[in-house]
Amino acid sequence: MPSIFTRIINGEIPCHRVYEDEHVIAFLDIGPVSRGHVLVVPKEERVRLDQLSDASAAALGRALRIVAAAVVKATGCVDYNVLQNNGAAAHQAVMHVHFHIIPKYADGSGLGMKWNAGTAPADAAELAGAIAAGARQAL
Amino acid sequence: MPSIFTRIINGEIPCHRVYEDEHVIAFLDIGPVSRGHVLVVPKEERVRLDQLSDASAAALGRALRIVAAAVVKATGCVDYNVLQNNGAAAHQAVMHVHFHIIPKYADGSGLGMKWNAGTAPADAAELAGAIAAGARQAL
Repeated sequence: MPSIFTRIINGEIPCHRVYEDEHVIAFLDIGPVSRGHVLVVPKEERVRLDQLSDASAAALGRALRIVAAAVVKATGCVDYNVLQNNGAAAHQAVMHVHFHIIPKYADGSGLGMKWNAGTAPADAAELAGAIAAGARQAL
Repeated sequence: MPSIFTRIINGEIPCHRVYEDEHVIAFLDIGPVSRGHVLVVPKEERVRLDQLSDASAAALGRALRIVAAAVVKATGCVDYNVLQNNGAAAHQAVMHVHFHIIPKYADGSGLGMKWNAGTAPADAAELAGAIAAGARQAL
């Protein structure tokens, strides 16, 4: 079943579009956390970021820069958060990859977060080695 | 003055590196919010995402997919958040662009967020038009 974002991409549901290219579309979030909250979405229908093609991932990186610059210019707000959630436990609501760009205004409106920093694990070198091995496989 | 990330990129400060290419380096966060918390950093020294070159932005998109896949594989945790903060008001601590990849575990460890969704502004069409104009300029 196509996601609501695929239906937007296909023009079956309207949106306030701000950017589009071969691989990516961006539009206003209909439930904005702050003014200028935009979603940047790959046309490739995948649930998680790690499941995308290399072409989609590169296009998303390009589009994030372009749309972030446009949101800064249109809102006058230079502080913002870029957030991408993978999985329901990580607050993903639509199961099609999407990045949020959320301006953070002087009045405090925008994304709030709880940041509980820990300390490096005792096996940090082994953990890094395991991730590095995974990265080589994912190339 | 170079950022601490530039000093890491230049090899002046050690890190637990998990990925590196021409434009990007990734390594374990020294104050992890959860196990496997990784930073993905462009070698280009800019404060905000919107200030990067197109080449850096595209390389970041590619690296995010690769490193996210590697973190999923190494930790076994498929839920995760990708976060990039711009400006002190938006919780940016190091003034050199960086993306966090933060696994979200079943025990709740990981990124917490406060999500206050609003409703679409009355001038949504005009706002989208202004952002679209900014995006055309930023291409």
